Amino acid sequence: MEQGDRQGGGPLSPAVTRSAVRAGSYHDSVVLMQLQRALAALPGVLDAGVVMATPANRDVLAVGGLEADAGAGPDDLLIVVKAESEAAAGEALSRVDALLQVRQGGEGQDFRPRSLATALKQLPEARWVLVSVPGRYAADVADEALDHGRNVFLYSDNVSLEREAALKRKARDRGLLVLGPDCGTAVLGGIGFGFANRVRRGPIGLVGASGTGLQAVMSQIHHLGSGISQAIGTGGRDLSEKVGGITAAQSLELLRRDPETRVIVLLGKPPAPEVGDGLLALAASAEKPVVVYFLGQQIEKFERRIGNVWFAETLQEAAELAVWLVKDAGLKREAPISGYLRGLFSGGTLAFEALRGLHAFIAPIWANFGVPQWRLADPLRSQGHTVLDLGADEFTVGRLHPMIDQDLRLRRLRQEAADLTVGVILLDVVLGDGAHADPAGELAPVIAQTRAQVVVIVIGTDDDPQGLAVQIETLERAGARVFRTVTEALLWIELQMEEPPETEEHPGGQAVPPESVQAPVAVINIGLETFSASLAAQGARVVQVDWRPPAGGNEKLASLLARMKK
Amino acid sequence: MEQGDRQGGGPLSPAVTRSAVRAGSYHDSVVLMQLQRALAALPGVLDAGVVMATPANRDVLAVGGLEADAGAGPDDLLIVVKAESEAAAGEALSRVDALLQVRQGGEGQDFRPRSLATALKQLPEARWVLVSVPGRYAADVADEALDHGRNVFLYSDNVSLEREAALKRKARDRGLLVLGPDCGTAVLGGIGFGFANRVRRGPIGLVGASGTGLQAVMSQIHHLGSGISQAIGTGGRDLSEKVGGITAAQSLELLRRDPETRVIVLLGKPPAPEVGDGLLALAASAEKPVVVYFLGQQIEKFERRIGNVWFAETLQEAAELAVWLVKDAGLKREAPISGYLRGLFSGGTLAFEALRGLHAFIAPIWANFGVPQWRLADPLRSQGHTVLDLGADEFTVGRLHPMIDQDLRLRRLRQEAADLTVGVILLDVVLGDGAHADPAGELAPVIAQTRAQVVVIVIGTDDDPQGLAVQIETLERAGARVFRTVTEALLWIELQMEEPPETEEHPGGQAVPPESVQAPVAVINIGLETFSASLAAQGARVVQVDWRPPAGGNEKLASLLARMKK
Repeated sequence: MEQGDRQGGGPLSPAVTRSAVRAGSYHDSVVLMQLQRALAALPGVLDAGVVMATPANRDVLAVGGLEADAGAGPDDLLIVVKAESEAAAGEALSRVDALLQVRQGGEGQDFRPRSLATALKQLPEARWVLVSVPGRYAADVADEALDHGRNVFLYSDNVSLEREAALKRKARDRGLLVLGPDCGTAVLGGIGFGFANRVRRGPIGLVGASGTGLQAVMSQIHHLGSGISQAIGTGGRDLSEKVGGITAAQSLELLRRDPETRVIVLLGKPPAPEVGDGLLALAASAEKPVVVYFLGQQIEKFERRIGNVWFAETLQEAAELAVWLVKDAGLKREAPISGYLRGLFSGGTLAFEALRGLHAFIAPIWANFGVPQWRLADPLRSQGHTVLDLGADEFTVGRLHPMIDQDLRLRRLRQEAADLTVGVILLDVVLGDGAHADPAGELAPVIAQTRAQVVVIVIGTDDDPQGLAVQIETLERAGARVFRTVTEALLWIELQMEEPPETEEHPGGQAVPPESVQAPVAVINIGLETFSASLAAQGARVVQVDWRPPAGGNEKLASLLARMKK
Repeated sequence: MEQGDRQGGGPLSPAVTRSAVRAGSYHDSVVLMQLQRALAALPGVLDAGVVMATPANRDVLAVGGLEADAGAGPDDLLIVVKAESEAAAGEALSRVDALLQVRQGGEGQDFRPRSLATALKQLPEARWVLVSVPGRYAADVADEALDHGRNVFLYSDNVSLEREAALKRKARDRGLLVLGPDCGTAVLGGIGFGFANRVRRGPIGLVGASGTGLQAVMSQIHHLGSGISQAIGTGGRDLSEKVGGITAAQSLELLRRDPETRVIVLLGKPPAPEVGDGLLALAASAEKPVVVYFLGQQIEKFERRIGNVWFAETLQEAAELAVWLVKDAGLKREAPISGYLRGLFSGGTLAFEALRGLHAFIAPIWANFGVPQWRLADPLRSQGHTVLDLGADEFTVGRLHPMIDQDLRLRRLRQEAADLTVGVILLDVVLGDGAHADPAGELAPVIAQTRAQVVVIVIGTDDDPQGLAVQIETLERAGARVFRTVTEALLWIELQMEEPPETEEHPGGQAVPPESVQAPVAVINIGLETFSASLAAQGARVVQVDWRPPAGGNEKLASLLARMKK
């Protein structure tokens, strides 16, 4: 807009402001935006506003210096023009109807069905109906779509909680999804609905009662090099007590069964307590990692993870966690461990960090360092869970450090391996200059003969003289699970030591069939035409319905007509 | 070792165990390890142990089935052999002296100086002396090196706290470093001392009172694609009250002045309170980010960052934070902000997350959502710090969502820009299908005319139809600071709003000259020969000193000699 810097000029400008009203008429919001732009671009016009004349919208105009001189109600269209002269303002207002007319010609689609039923005849494979008509009509349109056995993406807001709950219960009974109302975002079968970023397809499935939250997380996942399988928006109120998280539960269940989805992310404002409990139980039995981000919920460090469910504190962290969980395929329950843990460390700091981390899930742990209370009576003999720093002074007088000479550790490893109460043995292997030339080669034959699960933390780089890849491969071939950090090794051990959760039944109603969210995607769009354009641009098949409100938007007439139909 | 699986056979085996003693003789630990291996490899020998005969070492042998039948004291060398027959055991023991002899021939270096003074004549450019002789001799050797104006890497353990403190005070007065005692790791001028991983050179400088801690962090930094400038081990007791963190403070100071170091990592066990305070004050005035990991110290979420000092809770997290801080060059104090913040969001979730994050450092914040207590009286007029969700119902009745139609936001942006009490304006720009075709293009002219600092969170991917790079560039050219996540944007704003810390004076004594840790590296090695080999393999110039303990290790004679020298 060229007039941009002259807008909102205030009392000093000699401008005149004039307004017009079109009573009780319905227009698509895109049409209103385009009319406003067209008016503002006319000669002599400084600024223009075109809104439905609600009190809030009138206030917005007034603050911007577009005070309306005409009376109008919330169902009326209000047009305000600020111009350099009376003549210019009058000229602009006189062109309103012509400009509205031009816009309503429509584009692209030759024949536009005027009802959902007709549209479905034209595109019977459409599994989805995208509804963005004004809120007071939206629930009826959605309901009609459900009656036709179609899933609904309900972009419209201003639908009552009661209608939302009713629509979702009906959908659940029929194995259908209602995303929304006020659903901003979904990516289904690779096609973005509403507002959606173009992201790599990949192993992360998203469920979100938050539109821009989904967009922020999907964008960050893409940025981090991973991708998404599905992103399912539920509408912001889905997790409320009244709605009961119906759509979120259906979506979790869908992603849990989806073989392409390896990690699930669940986003939303903190849910109603019962709804939250139900969703977390469902997540806990998903048999894949689930990252949960409930906006504004502070997480205590020790509550960061419960089984396969991980809690994030920011959108960025939710994305990072999901990507990390995908990469770390090792972090799942795969080899149940019972029995004592024995840690035989060559690195003191690694031993210390391991002892501290292990305390989160096993106790007591005996050691040859740390608090006197849990000090081993005899460092040469383990008891219960034990962690040893083999580089401690008592082991190294007149003896090389265990990072150079593994003799002591090999002897101790055999000793621990012979102990039938031992379930897991944790070792570090520190590579680099100065260290043993082939620690894995020496350890491997002993590891191979160890009944207990051996877990090794390998500290090293791909440039280290021992050859990082060879060292890891040697250890793995001997049967060890290898990790690169203490943190990851302990997470894995914790997962193996835990009781598996009970499997949760699916959330009632009929299961949503997987095809509902699979390519190819075909959609009936009812409402904002821009959504048709963007769906088509992404390769989806779309039919736009040339929707008009009942009785042309006249509420009284509409309710009369509805009563006559009964 | 082929006999590996027959070792530790216990009482069932018909083996005989015999031992021998070499009284009061000193041998390099590598020599002892090699002797043990040579003995174990002889025909008929099942296992062998070669140790200084401390009670602990004798216990270790006994637990492994190598009970010594000879009496010996802690200064004596004890050799134990378990063999299939009396003859084999006798034969093995008879070869001990010959095997020790063979080993002592030395390798490589033609002429071996027998003193540090002579070695320094051979390699006068050596700035470092690596000391790994037994602890009771180590402090004297280190002291001699300081007298020669050389820095010391003191690998040896069993040096008293008092000697350590005295050595470090002396070093500090002369602008020298004493790394250790019991220092496992350093990488100086690209050369690894002691145990060190081969890591990319890069912008992260490490200081650590923890050897394997340094190795774990440097390996992980390398793994994450970044690299290190210097890694300076201080010895595990440097942060104790007695030593006072002298070496850590000198090292922090060195890295603070080092132009190659852009992020510093400080590792160690929790320091003595006064020592910790001093180091944190030094870190706070480093004018670059410092990541601190004090092992075992639990960090509250709200204490995660204080100014430029970041606290990590695991080794892995310390490495990740450092790499992230390097990448995010934007996260530094560069554009002091005063005045109110105004957030104009198109995404509700982004607005919510921003409001929550901002509460950590500014209050009160008024909003058109969230708790009623801080609800704006009039959403059309900001007051104090204000965050607005422009997609809220009151702004969108009969109007397109602000992600499609920015008209309302542009008007509000001009309104905020005209308010002289405003210091920073925070916007989101959400790209993707369905959204405005060029939001940055519309915002840029208005941003360019805004006196306040504009910060924009851009949510999008490089595949989005608007073109992520173009959108970011357009915003940046208009003068906005652009971030990709709410978290990063808020961190940057927080840094700009804070008071800068006072600059700390350097920690007394003489400053360590930068050349001390720069390439090319030349070292005098006194002690374990393997360190000479690994230094040379990395391209450092090394001279090995053919060190012998005073009076051949005979303590009484040695103290007599020392007294005669006075």
